[in-house]
Amino acid sequence: MKYIFIILISSFLANAQIKTEQLNLMPWPQSINLTDGNFVLDKGFKLNITGNPNPRIFIGATRFLRRLDGRTGLFFNQGFVTGLNEVPNAKLQINCAQNGKIGLHEDESYRLEINSGKITINATSDLGALHALETLLQMLQNSSTSYYFPTAVIEDFPRFSWRGLMIDAARHFLPVDVIKRNIDAMAAMKMNVFHWHLVDDQGWRIEMNKHPKLTQLASDGDFYTQEEIKNIVKYADERGILVVPEIDVPGHGTAILTAYPEIGSKINFDKTTYSIERNAGVFRPTLDPSNPKTYLLLSEIFDEVCPLFPGKYFHIGGDENEGKDWDSNPKIQEFKKKYKLENNHELQTYFTMQLIPMLKKHDKELMGWEEIMTKNMSQDAIIHSWKGTNEGVATGSSLVNAVKNGYKTVLSNGYYIDLMQGVESHYLTDPMPKNTLLSAEEKARILGGEATMWSELASPTTIDSRIWPRTCAIAERLWSNENITDLGSLRKRLKTVSFRLEELGITHIRNKAVLLRNISNNQKSEALEDFSNICEPLKIYSRNIGGTEYQMYSPLTLFADACTPDASDALDFDAAVNQYLKNKNAENQVLVTDFLKKWIGLNINLMELSANAPLVQPLLPLSKSLSDLSGQLLLLIDKKQSVNPSVLKDLLEQCNSKNHADVELAVYNSLKKLIQA
Amino acid sequence: MKYIFIILISSFLANAQIKTEQLNLMPWPQSINLTDGNFVLDKGFKLNITGNPNPRIFIGATRFLRRLDGRTGLFFNQGFVTGLNEVPNAKLQINCAQNGKIGLHEDESYRLEINSGKITINATSDLGALHALETLLQMLQNSSTSYYFPTAVIEDFPRFSWRGLMIDAARHFLPVDVIKRNIDAMAAMKMNVFHWHLVDDQGWRIEMNKHPKLTQLASDGDFYTQEEIKNIVKYADERGILVVPEIDVPGHGTAILTAYPEIGSKINFDKTTYSIERNAGVFRPTLDPSNPKTYLLLSEIFDEVCPLFPGKYFHIGGDENEGKDWDSNPKIQEFKKKYKLENNHELQTYFTMQLIPMLKKHDKELMGWEEIMTKNMSQDAIIHSWKGTNEGVATGSSLVNAVKNGYKTVLSNGYYIDLMQGVESHYLTDPMPKNTLLSAEEKARILGGEATMWSELASPTTIDSRIWPRTCAIAERLWSNENITDLGSLRKRLKTVSFRLEELGITHIRNKAVLLRNISNNQKSEALEDFSNICEPLKIYSRNIGGTEYQMYSPLTLFADACTPDASDALDFDAAVNQYLKNKNAENQVLVTDFLKKWIGLNINLMELSANAPLVQPLLPLSKSLSDLSGQLLLLIDKKQSVNPSVLKDLLEQCNSKNHADVELAVYNSLKKLIQA
Repeated sequence: MKYIFIILISSFLANAQIKTEQLNLMPWPQSINLTDGNFVLDKGFKLNITGNPNPRIFIGATRFLRRLDGRTGLFFNQGFVTGLNEVPNAKLQINCAQNGKIGLHEDESYRLEINSGKITINATSDLGALHALETLLQMLQNSSTSYYFPTAVIEDFPRFSWRGLMIDAARHFLPVDVIKRNIDAMAAMKMNVFHWHLVDDQGWRIEMNKHPKLTQLASDGDFYTQEEIKNIVKYADERGILVVPEIDVPGHGTAILTAYPEIGSKINFDKTTYSIERNAGVFRPTLDPSNPKTYLLLSEIFDEVCPLFPGKYFHIGGDENEGKDWDSNPKIQEFKKKYKLENNHELQTYFTMQLIPMLKKHDKELMGWEEIMTKNMSQDAIIHSWKGTNEGVATGSSLVNAVKNGYKTVLSNGYYIDLMQGVESHYLTDPMPKNTLLSAEEKARILGGEATMWSELASPTTIDSRIWPRTCAIAERLWSNENITDLGSLRKRLKTVSFRLEELGITHIRNKAVLLRNISNNQKSEALEDFSNICEPLKIYSRNIGGTEYQMYSPLTLFADACTPDASDALDFDAAVNQYLKNKNAENQVLVTDFLKKWIGLNINLMELSANAPLVQPLLPLSKSLSDLSGQLLLLIDKKQSVNPSVLKDLLEQCNSKNHADVELAVYNSLKKLIQA
Repeated sequence: MKYIFIILISSFLANAQIKTEQLNLMPWPQSINLTDGNFVLDKGFKLNITGNPNPRIFIGATRFLRRLDGRTGLFFNQGFVTGLNEVPNAKLQINCAQNGKIGLHEDESYRLEINSGKITINATSDLGALHALETLLQMLQNSSTSYYFPTAVIEDFPRFSWRGLMIDAARHFLPVDVIKRNIDAMAAMKMNVFHWHLVDDQGWRIEMNKHPKLTQLASDGDFYTQEEIKNIVKYADERGILVVPEIDVPGHGTAILTAYPEIGSKINFDKTTYSIERNAGVFRPTLDPSNPKTYLLLSEIFDEVCPLFPGKYFHIGGDENEGKDWDSNPKIQEFKKKYKLENNHELQTYFTMQLIPMLKKHDKELMGWEEIMTKNMSQDAIIHSWKGTNEGVATGSSLVNAVKNGYKTVLSNGYYIDLMQGVESHYLTDPMPKNTLLSAEEKARILGGEATMWSELASPTTIDSRIWPRTCAIAERLWSNENITDLGSLRKRLKTVSFRLEELGITHIRNKAVLLRNISNNQKSEALEDFSNICEPLKIYSRNIGGTEYQMYSPLTLFADACTPDASDALDFDAAVNQYLKNKNAENQVLVTDFLKKWIGLNINLMELSANAPLVQPLLPLSKSLSDLSGQLLLLIDKKQSVNPSVLKDLLEQCNSKNHADVELAVYNSLKKLIQA
């Protein structure tokens, strides 16, 4: 009887109909139609696969079962999916017409139909089916006692073919598990290109059999073995993701030249001319384009590295070569004259053109940062557009130039997630330029975009929180219809999507707590957590000024490392201020003053905490400024007392300080609005 | 001026003298003398290495710098330590007389002298020096603004030579990063033997070149490549840790027989006779000791596996062979007769004896669980003592038998950390038997002990919280003087030691929050966390009854997986009850009633939470029982009202239920005391 009662309740609650805007799907599908019903999950839930898919779907389907089981605790009977048509009468039927290939321009579409008694996924290939399974996981709803999928028909396909994430494993080495969990998160966001930045001034990260000096002298022992690389490529393949390796040349060459100084551009080199760079920035060490040994080495390197990566693209960097060592080397100047190369751009083009056949030998297309695009550069090269206002050029201008010049291109300007900017600017950056007339052919050359995570200020412990959840928004920009731009909806969905990344091992939430425990010296402290929710790390290269405050081995265990963009309480406070400014009724006033009161208490608590926590000391000037300003504002708002405007202004400016603990108060703009109103 | 003031304050505070009992050292050193002063850390802190050490000390010293820097945020100038005498005037001088070898009976002693201007570590080898660096890290103190080491002289050495941790990677596969972080934690606790249980009924976890079927058919794709194994062995070596592999035969043989059914003991086998076991327990599949092919296969396996492990010991399991398939196989019965083997014990001895030369060929000594100790077993074998009252024999009886029979032995009975018992019982288990007279020679055969972490109910996400921090107490038992047994001191020190394990990547704290977020459906909930701090997972094989409630792929994401032994609030409540029972003054009464009030509120909050969190539902009966009992106790204690004793008794017994959510209320015994008082 009790059992029947529970079933009745559960099916009653499960039938509460959900609306489309309540769904937390990301990237948002091209088409979704909810119908009137639910598919209720139970222990007997099983899936079956038919068609002619790549075996990666078996692995993906098993992973799907385990993730769903981990969320629901239902103890599904079905264990491992290992073959076709194992459970013909299963309630989830997955049919893939053909074997999906890892690469661009594959048909990744799917159709997901959820009925109350049956779920059907139809996809051209397993690639689409994997996407469908991610969507299905995101469709999961619950009542108080049961889990269910609302019935619906979803038809979906990506807007762009290149939906990438670059991770820089050169500045801070990132162990295999870090890469793998980020690949899992990419797959969850239907991203399909993992660009692996493997070499830079600070380290060479690839095991080399023919040239072991590269890791012996230029990796600090931190590199991927070839087996690990193959293993990661396979792992990515199983998730529908292409891996594009990058070896950055001829600039960013310190690591290579630490091992092989003889191919550097400096004159009078000796064995100690170059050493692994510990700082961040743009450095002089550059490969010598006039030296035949340079090409011999690179060709041997490509011969060994290319076979590790079955994909069609190889990124050779090519960025930020200032050519200083070229200018000061007479031999190189002579070379330029001899080959009638008028400037360093032409010299670099000469250099890059030598690499094209080395890569073509392995059936690879060359890709490089936008600097490689010079007048004589082959149109086979793919141009990676990255510069913008920070670099003194118009946002994404190279993208338009590239497609007009006949190059394929990928956009990263606007997607530099290491700059610690809020999610909105990334979300509203569209690879398809507005206000520029492009032909259909030119548009087709815009392959997509790529979030770029440079790791000068990110460690294995912190990098997930630098990548996620903001990259989800970029993933949506690259997959979904261009009209999907509602910021309110984005923020709302991001809360759930971010939480769900935890099940893939992403550490953005859990490791924040770890960092705060270390900072607090293991004292329990809500104040520290609250403060971290209104502070953000300094943005756009303003942390680590000159690249020398931090070395690559410096601790990234500070408050700024625990903080993230889009500080949650700051967003809530801004909403409260906006509401209050619209209507200064008592209720809205409380919304604002509750924050102000909290911050006064927070300052006191932080001071107490700091008595046994030196790492809390640097936060106190900021928390005091905020507390002082909050006190004045309370007098103004709560007590209706008049407050000296210049005092307010001074206090406000103290809250705008960027001189403490490498963070800024993310509530500054909202406070300013409040004061100016 | 401000700067000088800060310095004055800091040196003033830094000089507050610490007492020995305030130190949070674990394992506690053999001798420690605090003197009157401090060594204050600053950015310029450097270390220098002299003597003739193994290069592992360079890696260890660099790691030490990074960990210390991560805690203090001082941005040490010193980057990588790569050679001898790099910084002759460094304030930390490490001198190692000789190159340490990985193995038993090495001199691991060290002398650590901290003076206010200089720190000196003297050790026979780098092994001792690595231990000294761990001690030094544990010596770290702080004022409000600075970090320092109190001056002291510490002389230290281990009591036992074998201080092990076994991790079962067969039941649940544990990726490389899980193993590595646990090796780091072992090193922090001065443990020196990592016993790697690599094969069991549920999976074969070693890549095999000559016998690929083992992983193809019996690993679900989850295994270590030989390169990964070598990499882990090297990683352990760099931390002074010996790796002892285990391939469990002739019982626990399902995985092997899934690949090679022809060497199984079942009669009339075909290719589907055996399949990877998904449940937990003791199973019939057993290798056929009468079949020459069995020995051929094993010998080839050892030929491939032994070279991966340079250490001297190889564990062949040998446990829990019930011999049922031997009894029912006429061919095996015939074999027994032919070789005059009177029973299955003798047959197993025959089997095991065949393995000794296979291992000796690779210069390895055979080790096995205590079942291998039969009258004809070679005295070269090491006996791993594991049975006790749970198995119906006297605690550790095999240990005494072994040493009396001339075998070397290692104790694990009492150290079965997978049984979810409190830390105290493990801590008070001593490998040296009390009340048994042993000769010095016999005593010397007791090599030490080993914590054993079986993984039927532990996943990569949860296993750290099953191992740590309780294993720290076992490490102390095996290292420190036998008189170090104060439970209050243990618990106090364990709080800090447990927190510090986080910096090594151990996830026992952070992943609990992850599990609770999933259970709460991402609702913020202090109630759920509070409840987890008074609940413990069911103990001693009482979770997963019969081994069939959970399969190896079942979700370990439930409330019981978030809970741990030694539930923190339960310990605090017990202390409060004891204090109250000693003196029922108002102050002590509040200590108790605050808990009771909290639990009434907690039940309400959990009910609210459960409205949107099905996984919270199973907890409600327990939280309601606790709330109801708390209400009655408040009437009794606070209001001085009389309460029906039988009502109290009934409610108390409901609080003793083990029928909900696989947990028990850890406050039951304290509540019982309170009621009976």
